[in-house]
Amino acid sequence: MSARALEALQSADVIVGYKTYIDLIKDLIQDRKVISTGMTREKERCAAAIEQAAAGHRVAVVSSGDPGVYGMAGLILEMLEARDQLKTTPVKIIPGITSATASAARLGAPLMHDFAVISLSDLLTPWETIEKRLVAAARADFVIVLYNPASKKRDWQIKKAREICLYYKAPTTPVGIVKNAAREDEEIYITDLSGMLDYPIDMLTTVIVGNRSTRRVEGFIITPRGYVL
Amino acid sequence: MSARALEALQSADVIVGYKTYIDLIKDLIQDRKVISTGMTREKERCAAAIEQAAAGHRVAVVSSGDPGVYGMAGLILEMLEARDQLKTTPVKIIPGITSATASAARLGAPLMHDFAVISLSDLLTPWETIEKRLVAAARADFVIVLYNPASKKRDWQIKKAREICLYYKAPTTPVGIVKNAAREDEEIYITDLSGMLDYPIDMLTTVIVGNRSTRRVEGFIITPRGYVL
Repeated sequence: MSARALEALQSADVIVGYKTYIDLIKDLIQDRKVISTGMTREKERCAAAIEQAAAGHRVAVVSSGDPGVYGMAGLILEMLEARDQLKTTPVKIIPGITSATASAARLGAPLMHDFAVISLSDLLTPWETIEKRLVAAARADFVIVLYNPASKKRDWQIKKAREICLYYKAPTTPVGIVKNAAREDEEIYITDLSGMLDYPIDMLTTVIVGNRSTRRVEGFIITPRGYVL
Repeated sequence: MSARALEALQSADVIVGYKTYIDLIKDLIQDRKVISTGMTREKERCAAAIEQAAAGHRVAVVSSGDPGVYGMAGLILEMLEARDQLKTTPVKIIPGITSATASAARLGAPLMHDFAVISLSDLLTPWETIEKRLVAAARADFVIVLYNPASKKRDWQIKKAREICLYYKAPTTPVGIVKNAAREDEEIYITDLSGMLDYPIDMLTTVIVGNRSTRRVEGFIITPRGYVL
């Protein structure tokens, strides 16, 4: 967590967030009013935050990782716009460490070259759009970072994503799988496109697939930047 | 800066980094031995860091943003590998807030959907590779984040990147330009593909080009995630 995020939490009098994330910071927000709801209740949380702010409270809306990467920043702004309150409500977005770079740091240096971040969740996005982006990223040899790769109800998207990658990338292309990056119950696996489905992949997991230069060395994944050593 | 990064700096006895970045943290590293060199001297800095570590020092190598995104993490690992010291040198990579998300936070919420990060620097990468990735990302309607968009010596790459974007994206596609994101001398411009070249773009600037749903609203750039409001 950044110093600015901590400061924002400590200067707020109402904290709004998804229950799991609120639990992670409970020691930092004692004595604050907390509004937490379950998964997929994002709109409800945003509405609550906006109402609290309109009532004169200083509200902190908590996202994991970075609020601007598939997080709550966009929904807050959109909802304020829809209610015609965007001009009158001061909003400050505080960036964080998104899972792509938190996971990369645990794997070595897989993101030293151009990369594409793609969410495999087709709840809000048609699968055709996701597939088109997977094809484009794999064909142009991007390192690919997969967010929301699977959940209990969504199990085939990661298999399909791997198939698309295998069409353009070698089966030996390094793959890093990080669950709960930088948290207590972190799990890290380094494998390749061929073997990746043998590892646990769920909604708390980020998957990073290398480009054609990415290598596995001594427990690290390295994508060379291009320096001549 | 994250608490972990600060901790690492404070527990190191030697700090190695690019002069400009060392200056930004000089108040935090008083009384430490500092090895700083100029731009494009990355290999020299890494070699110095490795030598200091081999001599028994606890060394912190400083990158701006996130060390794993076009930063120093990869070069350190590669150089240790080349010297056959990767197994024997403990390396810890501490993630940071990369310019894509730091800049996004200042613009609103442009990265709420899939995005591609592309460096326009052709010093270490053939331009053909960069162009191929620009085409792929623009055609598949990614939000596009451009790192190293221009420098005193590199001025045509950003024009070419804009041309490629204009082939696939509307001229009214929102563009955010952020210089020195979250630093004292920060500059923020919100414009569109048509007008973007009228703004100052240099090597301290990050440029974010929206997808087909990205909108400009009340001084913000928002890429909708897809919620029905």
